[in-house]
Amino acid sequence: MYLTQSLQRSARCHPRKLATIFGSRRTDYATMLDRVARLGGALRSLGVGPGDRVALLSLNSDRYLEYFYAVYWAGAVVNPANIRWSAGEIAYSLADCDTRVLLVDDQFLPMLPALRGQATCLTTIIHCGDGETPDGLLSYEGLVRTEEPADEIVRGGEDLAGVFYTGGTTGFPKGVMLPHRSLYANGLTLVADATDIDFRNMIGLHSAPMFHLADHAFTNGLAMAGATHVMLPMFNPQQVAETIERERVTGALLVPTMVQMLADAPTTAQHDLSSLGFLLYGGSPIAEAVVDRALRIMPHVRLMQGYGMTELGPLATLLPHESHVGEGRAGGKLRSAGRPTLIADVRIVGLDGNEVPRGEHGEVAVRGPGMMLGYWNKPEETTTAIRGGWMHTGDGGYMDDEGFVYIADRIKDMIVTGGENVYSVEVENAVAKHPAVLQCAVIGVPDDKWGEVVHACVVPRPGAQVTLEELQQHCKVLIANYKIPRALELLDELPLSGAGKILKN
Amino acid sequence: MYLTQSLQRSARCHPRKLATIFGSRRTDYATMLDRVARLGGALRSLGVGPGDRVALLSLNSDRYLEYFYAVYWAGAVVNPANIRWSAGEIAYSLADCDTRVLLVDDQFLPMLPALRGQATCLTTIIHCGDGETPDGLLSYEGLVRTEEPADEIVRGGEDLAGVFYTGGTTGFPKGVMLPHRSLYANGLTLVADATDIDFRNMIGLHSAPMFHLADHAFTNGLAMAGATHVMLPMFNPQQVAETIERERVTGALLVPTMVQMLADAPTTAQHDLSSLGFLLYGGSPIAEAVVDRALRIMPHVRLMQGYGMTELGPLATLLPHESHVGEGRAGGKLRSAGRPTLIADVRIVGLDGNEVPRGEHGEVAVRGPGMMLGYWNKPEETTTAIRGGWMHTGDGGYMDDEGFVYIADRIKDMIVTGGENVYSVEVENAVAKHPAVLQCAVIGVPDDKWGEVVHACVVPRPGAQVTLEELQQHCKVLIANYKIPRALELLDELPLSGAGKILKN
Repeated sequence: MYLTQSLQRSARCHPRKLATIFGSRRTDYATMLDRVARLGGALRSLGVGPGDRVALLSLNSDRYLEYFYAVYWAGAVVNPANIRWSAGEIAYSLADCDTRVLLVDDQFLPMLPALRGQATCLTTIIHCGDGETPDGLLSYEGLVRTEEPADEIVRGGEDLAGVFYTGGTTGFPKGVMLPHRSLYANGLTLVADATDIDFRNMIGLHSAPMFHLADHAFTNGLAMAGATHVMLPMFNPQQVAETIERERVTGALLVPTMVQMLADAPTTAQHDLSSLGFLLYGGSPIAEAVVDRALRIMPHVRLMQGYGMTELGPLATLLPHESHVGEGRAGGKLRSAGRPTLIADVRIVGLDGNEVPRGEHGEVAVRGPGMMLGYWNKPEETTTAIRGGWMHTGDGGYMDDEGFVYIADRIKDMIVTGGENVYSVEVENAVAKHPAVLQCAVIGVPDDKWGEVVHACVVPRPGAQVTLEELQQHCKVLIANYKIPRALELLDELPLSGAGKILKN
Repeated sequence: MYLTQSLQRSARCHPRKLATIFGSRRTDYATMLDRVARLGGALRSLGVGPGDRVALLSLNSDRYLEYFYAVYWAGAVVNPANIRWSAGEIAYSLADCDTRVLLVDDQFLPMLPALRGQATCLTTIIHCGDGETPDGLLSYEGLVRTEEPADEIVRGGEDLAGVFYTGGTTGFPKGVMLPHRSLYANGLTLVADATDIDFRNMIGLHSAPMFHLADHAFTNGLAMAGATHVMLPMFNPQQVAETIERERVTGALLVPTMVQMLADAPTTAQHDLSSLGFLLYGGSPIAEAVVDRALRIMPHVRLMQGYGMTELGPLATLLPHESHVGEGRAGGKLRSAGRPTLIADVRIVGLDGNEVPRGEHGEVAVRGPGMMLGYWNKPEETTTAIRGGWMHTGDGGYMDDEGFVYIADRIKDMIVTGGENVYSVEVENAVAKHPAVLQCAVIGVPDDKWGEVVHACVVPRPGAQVTLEELQQHCKVLIANYKIPRALELLDELPLSGAGKILKN
């Protein structure tokens, strides 16, 4: 149970199959194996020993996958930096786990002085961009060119594979320690769970950031199945549509906001998306209107939602396509996060740690091979999170009779107005159906009279206009009166978190 | 990564779905979880501690699956007895790993005195048959009825899950120690590898013996996916056909001989087999004629071959349906054992342990999470088998450019006649096409002049007759002259090994 196994297997079974496509650069599996063995050797020559952390601060590229494999090849531990963070936050995450080697692309070169100043543990910087390598940095391609392929240092199972930093609700980021077992099992269960999807022959698109566990689960699924990875530096609806058409992409991971932006971009209709048969999304729930728009432009696509958290490597539940349409949707399953993956044992527990009766609210607790080893250097936080062998997610929710898990967190921005509960997602569903609305988020705003009032933030479509009154008229036929927005705020864009979720605070 | 997880998950997600069907007895997942917790508690009350071995000597039944789960529930280790062995061999396997508790069904009660005499470690016998419980034995259903559900003792990962005895080529049987990780990973990869097969909604038939790892891989795949198990006490072509029709069975595991017997039984045509969409076979290669006959009676079935060994828990490679028909078959893939499973890293190595150039013969070596911990109490044999982290299978073979593995062992009974190599399977393919031939096996018989001569053993169809001359005439148009049988032996049946392989010695 070691993460290089998939590369070895692919290089033996289909050496000339494309492993990665990045712009005009194409690398087959035999070549990638050779490059990984060289880069792994280079890391060892640079003093990286088994268990040492190696960071990467970069937009998506084919080298991102090579980085994962090469670090594992050297017996070391990946530490992918959150590209949405400030230099201070990134430096904290590097220093916290004593990362000495950092790979950085062109985009993030300007951040280096600040990082070096604050993360004094850094001794070696490898430039993995396509521009010229600045003085004082090592060249990624230079290392691959000059180094001999090294023997692999096989680590696996419970050995630490990566330290992935998460924001944490309070205070400093926490380093989630994931062993080989966790990432391996997550990749395998994704392939096994997606019964109706052919991962082996997939051409899978990475446009969500690859540092994030949402895309990383997809990465590991594609890797386990020996599929082809297509990387875009970052999400851009036009480039996504172009790339799907050009490379005949068959599978993709997006966050719901990206699904919406893809569905709404005027350029999308100019491209043939018929190859895309599988769309995995995660990171946040999806509005019904977005599902409808996605299915309008891609009627053949099969949707799947993943719910989980970094600490689970990350999958806990999956919601299959059947729950997005027809009977499943009519039965309300689209409001759920789906059912436990094949590797996850999921329970809803009370404050005493015992399972609550089915249908009652409690905390979502998960057990299984996806679980982290703990938080880096934070034994107390680890003990709080993992109790009695169960990862306590901190998410509230309930489970129905069929094992579907409903996360209250996805309705955590529930608005209480005049004593009535209003779920933002329900209002968002209604607002999003207005023809002038490109994107929207609904929040509660404190109000002396009503406690909270429903407040809609809307990004209008280019050239379109909408007033509060029009929006209210539109919503009146869709939702109850007390749910209708009392205020409208027009924005140029919605603020997004590092993982592409809408930041409602 | 613990084997009870699948039961927990199923009981939460679909408590009223049938877990097992055995004759007229139907047990849903909620009930099974309750029974397993009681039986696990009973085992603990009987003094079974974590890591202790518990054996079962029984034909297939629904209780076989409960036994697996209950032993794991108690933190203990399964030790399923080979029902084809003599009392002496079984007693050896029980005594070797100091098994103190044995479950036995009605069929094997007569063997008890001999077992108790030779396996003096036995202290407790539980009667798990449907007949009356003899004096001095505990009643399985009595224990389930009187015991309270116990808390689970969670063991997993590298913890020992089972000791499975294999014949071994020389001397005494060896106890293969498989950890939870191995059986779990094998179940999961079977579901993931069978991309085109829906394991979740499968109604899977066990008619090959459940002690054997071939059926056990199927058991674990069905369990991981939360499917329904149908058990037949033993293989019988008429009962298999009846059961497929009655229970709308959608998947089954058979050994090739059983496939042939099912295809050839006159009663088969009287039953509707249209529900059966998936037929996994393993344990030995299959003759092309048998594939053809199977597809004639079940044109909709998708075939899959598994190759492996107990020491791998057991899967190493899988041959998909595409290789059984059309282009794949024309390309010769049906002569292979398929490609490495998603969890297996497979290499062909030379005597020095290094990989040989692609296409060259060597020993099949496998690495991955399926691998055993070692042989029980046989450190030397373990060191010989697992070298440098690789399980050396002892099977000769080669790998083609697409990663398909060809086992020479399946052509190990290669006959050298007059300096020419004749592969038995090729001759068997030809002989099997003769209308009077029900079953056949081709062996080499020592000969002063030719070294060996080709010798055909044939079981004729009921009422049919065939002479050597007729058979030679028939083969002449199919295979080269030197491959044609020089002798014919008519038999009532072919001798089978415990796993249902034809014993050619």
